[in-house]
Amino acid sequence: METVEALGKFLPDVDRPNAGVFAWEDDDDGWVALRYDLTAPLARVYAQHRNDLPLPYRRYAMGPVWRNEKPGPGRFRQFYQCDADTVGTASVAADAEICMMLADTLEAVGIERGDYVVRINNRKVLNGVMEVAGILDPADPEKFAHERGIVLRAIDKLDRLGAEGVRALLGEGRTDDSGDRTEGAKLTDAQIAVVSGYVDSITWAQQQIRNDARIGNSEAIEQWNPYIIKSIERTVEASAQGVEGVAELRQIAGLCAAQGYGPDRIVIDPSVVRGLGYYTGPVFEAELTFEITDEKGRPRQFGSVAGGGRYDDLVKRFTGQAVPATGISIGVDRLLAALQAKGRIAADGQGPVVVTVMDRDRMSDYQAMATTLRQAGIRAEVYLGNPKNFGNQLKYADKRGSPVAIIQGEDEAARGVVQIKDLVLGAKIAETATLEEWKDQPAQFECPVDGLVEAVQKLIGRA
Amino acid sequence: METVEALGKFLPDVDRPNAGVFAWEDDDDGWVALRYDLTAPLARVYAQHRNDLPLPYRRYAMGPVWRNEKPGPGRFRQFYQCDADTVGTASVAADAEICMMLADTLEAVGIERGDYVVRINNRKVLNGVMEVAGILDPADPEKFAHERGIVLRAIDKLDRLGAEGVRALLGEGRTDDSGDRTEGAKLTDAQIAVVSGYVDSITWAQQQIRNDARIGNSEAIEQWNPYIIKSIERTVEASAQGVEGVAELRQIAGLCAAQGYGPDRIVIDPSVVRGLGYYTGPVFEAELTFEITDEKGRPRQFGSVAGGGRYDDLVKRFTGQAVPATGISIGVDRLLAALQAKGRIAADGQGPVVVTVMDRDRMSDYQAMATTLRQAGIRAEVYLGNPKNFGNQLKYADKRGSPVAIIQGEDEAARGVVQIKDLVLGAKIAETATLEEWKDQPAQFECPVDGLVEAVQKLIGRA
Repeated sequence: METVEALGKFLPDVDRPNAGVFAWEDDDDGWVALRYDLTAPLARVYAQHRNDLPLPYRRYAMGPVWRNEKPGPGRFRQFYQCDADTVGTASVAADAEICMMLADTLEAVGIERGDYVVRINNRKVLNGVMEVAGILDPADPEKFAHERGIVLRAIDKLDRLGAEGVRALLGEGRTDDSGDRTEGAKLTDAQIAVVSGYVDSITWAQQQIRNDARIGNSEAIEQWNPYIIKSIERTVEASAQGVEGVAELRQIAGLCAAQGYGPDRIVIDPSVVRGLGYYTGPVFEAELTFEITDEKGRPRQFGSVAGGGRYDDLVKRFTGQAVPATGISIGVDRLLAALQAKGRIAADGQGPVVVTVMDRDRMSDYQAMATTLRQAGIRAEVYLGNPKNFGNQLKYADKRGSPVAIIQGEDEAARGVVQIKDLVLGAKIAETATLEEWKDQPAQFECPVDGLVEAVQKLIGRA
Repeated sequence: METVEALGKFLPDVDRPNAGVFAWEDDDDGWVALRYDLTAPLARVYAQHRNDLPLPYRRYAMGPVWRNEKPGPGRFRQFYQCDADTVGTASVAADAEICMMLADTLEAVGIERGDYVVRINNRKVLNGVMEVAGILDPADPEKFAHERGIVLRAIDKLDRLGAEGVRALLGEGRTDDSGDRTEGAKLTDAQIAVVSGYVDSITWAQQQIRNDARIGNSEAIEQWNPYIIKSIERTVEASAQGVEGVAELRQIAGLCAAQGYGPDRIVIDPSVVRGLGYYTGPVFEAELTFEITDEKGRPRQFGSVAGGGRYDDLVKRFTGQAVPATGISIGVDRLLAALQAKGRIAADGQGPVVVTVMDRDRMSDYQAMATTLRQAGIRAEVYLGNPKNFGNQLKYADKRGSPVAIIQGEDEAARGVVQIKDLVLGAKIAETATLEEWKDQPAQFECPVDGLVEAVQKLIGRA
């Protein structure tokens, strides 16, 4: 929970300030809201505790965030983010470190190398392109904001629309295959030429890269990042901001390369935009590159699981003093979905051993069996429902995925034994076996009470 | 987030239904609110998914909950709970299991045996006392609700007020040491006699128990729970509900004893009340029994860290059908505070090795050193602030609790060596050493770059 002032105008969707959050009026604190990300609260916390925190301050955080939006498939009103940020340094070494850590993190949780790529761009480069095209006037930053929005969104979609599609959006607009019309930025021909030049440099470089990859030219692959940076350099050379952005990208790429993070893991991609209004320099996103099957059975790329960038002005609103900062936010739910899609989160198929209840007056004996099994490291539980119907007890064991049921009636108790029912084998026999096999492999057998752990261990070990 | 209907009237404070939660009106869903505990949402989830869940259904959950109350010391508007519940069984074996698990859990997180006790009572017993005293009419449960509230709150405070104090609250009321007046229930003498009889049985039994404990009569100690239950049995024998409650307590105590959980860990305490309106049978609370020092430096018992009980009517409001359930809720923040008070959460005193930056053009060399150290399992980080002022770098290392700083200037780089500054020894020397000692134990020494890991390991291992 944060005060609305603390969240301020840095809302998820810059086009709708003050929308998209859950907010209400509190008796004491005025308007309060649920945090919509972990970055705005970090800025508030840093401002509040800056005298006690080390400088620079590196921190990670994980927790739920809330967006007041229509829920949809894969789109929740509450979801989890995991963030890592460095506050208090303007050095792009911090940006490079964040990107390398992001790559390490994805591998650590089970995304294999080759299945992800961290893409990096720089807002200063994009601003440089806008400046050169004459749709960004540093002296009047609000001017042409509408046009810039259309242009940036178009560049962001380069992957999907291609250079031709982007060009259409720079001019009159574009009608997609379904007949939907997207309004264009209506730039002049000279303006379109600048932005198109930038876009063509990107597509041209990416074409070269695809060729290198196809023929496995590993020496060339190592040179991708410098090559891409060089390809866009000329477009922005008339803009001081653009030149600065290119220099920063070059430093970041150099630092990553020096630590052995090649462009197969961390790649400069000048088409990355990122939506949030507060980014001021390098921007990053991590994309998972493998294909999954969507709800309709069609193959598609998994897409983005993390995004971030440098936000040098966010802390200033609390302290008045500029505090540079950079960081990344991982969408935990999306990452889990990806791991699930790759079969990396196998639900533990085997449930607990179920100790059934034949005689409800001897509940403590049954609990003692469960305790004995647990103490031997075997998950176990006593059936706690109404024990009258034994079929319900076996149904419960089935629903819990239990490998084994323990049974002890009056007769067994008197003889100091238990019945051990092998539910895995039982299910197999019920499915496939002939009468012959059944005879040799009984799915239920008797053992002395003090041999319980050993007998169960043997059965479970087998699976 | 839940709809207000799902949270319903089962709000934390039954005296103020619909107060105490953060709620607002949503465009689509009507009134929604932040959950105030994990139990009401469990009831909703179980009702929603009951066809797919095993029966009985055991579940644990952990997460934040919210209360719209004035924050105070140790009293937050957002805090964490960790719950465990069993839904779908009326068997008190489930209650006993929850209590035993609670004891195990406290020990597992670091509360030693003897430092906690799980207290159990039964609402049916308390209702039995009220019935016998003539302030609970099963045919008209709302009647005398005000008086019962006063009586139950008085019993709940038996520990603090003593039998005399409770008796005063049953009659005209009571003025405490500070002069504050608490209104009494104004019961008749006959009614007071019933409730006082119950309270006296408890204090008498507890007196006996303290004697046993004092003289270390371990055989007697084992009999505490049966003894306490017996002592209150006569008071409620005229109430069917009371008799049922006593029988349930006896079963629970028997199951716990059979598993070896003696009254030193799980004790029957007929003065336990628990505030929540929805409990219908056994109620539990876990208390930490060691002393801590409060804000004003006075010693006091740490007190309750967990509470729960049986709530057989909570699911019914969704399904119409009674679904018995029982569970426990641990106050995670309070438990952490307790572990901190016991010194069980020692912050890792040692910070990361800090690689300082002497030459900002060789940032990738410094990052390579950090990477090398990390790959050897040593926490390390490069200083990312402005490297101009070397004093700031050492201040940073100090604030991070770093044991070692790595230094490599132009000269060292040319010779393939690094300077290793032992910050722990350095601090000691600065504090205490004479010039003689300083000579023999240099706090800074040189080593070849490829001996970095070994040298640092040696220094860190020493601490």
